[in-house]
Amino acid sequence: MSSLSVLPPECLLQPFPVPQRLMLGPGPSNVPARIAAAGAQPMLGHLHAETIEIMNQIKSGIQYAFQTRNRVTLAVSGPGHAAMECAIFNSLEPGESVLIAVNGIWGERAADIAERIGAKVNTVVTSPGGYFTNEEIEQALDKYRPVVFFLTHGESSTGVVHPIDGIGDLCHKYNCLFLVDSVAALGGTPICMDEQGIDIMYTGSQKVLNAPPGTAPISFSERACYHHTGPVSFFYGLRESLAILAETGLENSWKRHKEVAEYFHKGLEEMGLKLFVQDKKARLPTVTTIVAPSGYEWREITGYIMKTYNIEISGGLGPSAGMVLRVGLMGCNSTKANVDKVLEALADALKHCHKSRV
Amino acid sequence: MSSLSVLPPECLLQPFPVPQRLMLGPGPSNVPARIAAAGAQPMLGHLHAETIEIMNQIKSGIQYAFQTRNRVTLAVSGPGHAAMECAIFNSLEPGESVLIAVNGIWGERAADIAERIGAKVNTVVTSPGGYFTNEEIEQALDKYRPVVFFLTHGESSTGVVHPIDGIGDLCHKYNCLFLVDSVAALGGTPICMDEQGIDIMYTGSQKVLNAPPGTAPISFSERACYHHTGPVSFFYGLRESLAILAETGLENSWKRHKEVAEYFHKGLEEMGLKLFVQDKKARLPTVTTIVAPSGYEWREITGYIMKTYNIEISGGLGPSAGMVLRVGLMGCNSTKANVDKVLEALADALKHCHKSRV
Repeated sequence: MSSLSVLPPECLLQPFPVPQRLMLGPGPSNVPARIAAAGAQPMLGHLHAETIEIMNQIKSGIQYAFQTRNRVTLAVSGPGHAAMECAIFNSLEPGESVLIAVNGIWGERAADIAERIGAKVNTVVTSPGGYFTNEEIEQALDKYRPVVFFLTHGESSTGVVHPIDGIGDLCHKYNCLFLVDSVAALGGTPICMDEQGIDIMYTGSQKVLNAPPGTAPISFSERACYHHTGPVSFFYGLRESLAILAETGLENSWKRHKEVAEYFHKGLEEMGLKLFVQDKKARLPTVTTIVAPSGYEWREITGYIMKTYNIEISGGLGPSAGMVLRVGLMGCNSTKANVDKVLEALADALKHCHKSRV
Repeated sequence: MSSLSVLPPECLLQPFPVPQRLMLGPGPSNVPARIAAAGAQPMLGHLHAETIEIMNQIKSGIQYAFQTRNRVTLAVSGPGHAAMECAIFNSLEPGESVLIAVNGIWGERAADIAERIGAKVNTVVTSPGGYFTNEEIEQALDKYRPVVFFLTHGESSTGVVHPIDGIGDLCHKYNCLFLVDSVAALGGTPICMDEQGIDIMYTGSQKVLNAPPGTAPISFSERACYHHTGPVSFFYGLRESLAILAETGLENSWKRHKEVAEYFHKGLEEMGLKLFVQDKKARLPTVTTIVAPSGYEWREITGYIMKTYNIEISGGLGPSAGMVLRVGLMGCNSTKANVDKVLEALADALKHCHKSRV
């Protein structure tokens, strides 16, 4: 009886097998079988007692991962970007002054969002690969007297981990909320929300936590609200990823990411490659930026590695576009075995790719 | 070396097994093993070629399910509520006039959202369980001259399926976009976007489509834009649910939902229960509303059925709160075997629950 004008699409009438790939870009990272299996458990109602219990456990897990006792600690249903919007929308009103530290693409994005809601946006900007001293931040706070100060902890576009110590105190001295984006860093490098005086912080599920993209942990020191049909089976996965972090221990996770990143950096330098972030202590252990090797077209290198090794690494983004290669080593992907694989793939790519530029 | 002040939470250091439950509320519905397994496939990058291909296949699947050839057809990353926001935000500017047909909670919600973005909100309101004639709609279009007319196709709070024929033509006669919420109905009862002159339509993944909540199909006749880290593994599940629909055939799906709902309605009437929606042709086949049996506390009935049978059914919502029981039979849950189970559970509940009110 097909009176329908649009017929069933052929492409859906055959299976679509997803390839296995080593995901060493700046995220999403690989999802361990245990987390994938958790996500495939039976559906529950978003208001059932068990779902509420899972959400409470997720809250505890985020409190642990963030090192906070904030009551308003939850998973936003959406990508990390939704958490950024949630953080900015809930802390700024139109006409209010905000100060945004721009040391890469995420600060730029935050400035865009704040502008769209009608805030008075002030920025301090550093060159790609750089970061701000506390003195620079205090000068800007004093000059702009913002209601909120936004800082990216792990800037995935440049590979910088920004120092956090002392900034919370400065913000509070100037009566300002301290808002931190730790999407690309949390769990992989130390940050302690309460101790470091951070008022609002968020991360993504698909980076160090190794859960599928689709939920974003966030915590507020004192405000906020939310309600809708939560992505129940995503919560299963997020709970499992937080359980792995709780079992591993946050400090062990930080330590492993640091050791593996240093092992990687040493290997890169031995190959004659240069790291984009000069200052060793400012190198983000979760995302390494490598100066794009001169004489090569970077796309050929990433393409060759994807095609030959089924490994994803990526080029630059925003201010680092065209300047770097980026390699993510996050959560379960942060192992020396993966470093060896990607070093081998890089060496091979440098041999086989054209030296198309000088 | 635990200098951390927040310790790993005990609740995460033990497994959390999710119970198997028959989900016959107004959604989410059960997720078939095939869709759950698709969602547990290996992670891919959100911009990898295969992910783009999956998104293209999803687009084709939504075009089939919606019966549309619209180019701008996609899955929003978020719950059905995000699609509602996306639809309203992309079709209305502050100060513009919108007409919202309120025949239940979803119209009320749309009015709230439109108000918050500063639109001039006009409503036509019908009593719970009722719907609008085309004459009433034309009068309101003529009076308010809106830019957008919002209508809920399957109003899950009252169990009404709203007639659609002719309304698109009326909207276009008054130079107005026709925006339809089919979250609770799509795939379970006929609607053909292009043929019926609908300009914007959306649904949820967790109703008839039986995919996990977290993505929402939407289609626009001519505008919109979007970009962020898509929930890749949710796309796998959504693709699979659209594949099942393509294999089943939309008309077979409509037919099965109708037959199963009528079988259910007959069984309810034989038990002496009353249907909330008087007009047979206005009964939503995906969500049945039953007049709350007099003399009973409805919460006792739903609680007893959950506890004794592990079956979820629910009470009313918004305008139908306290007045009805709601039973969802959506997608894979729309079977006569499930009807028999829920009829048995209802009969048993009426025997065992207190007649606490007269």
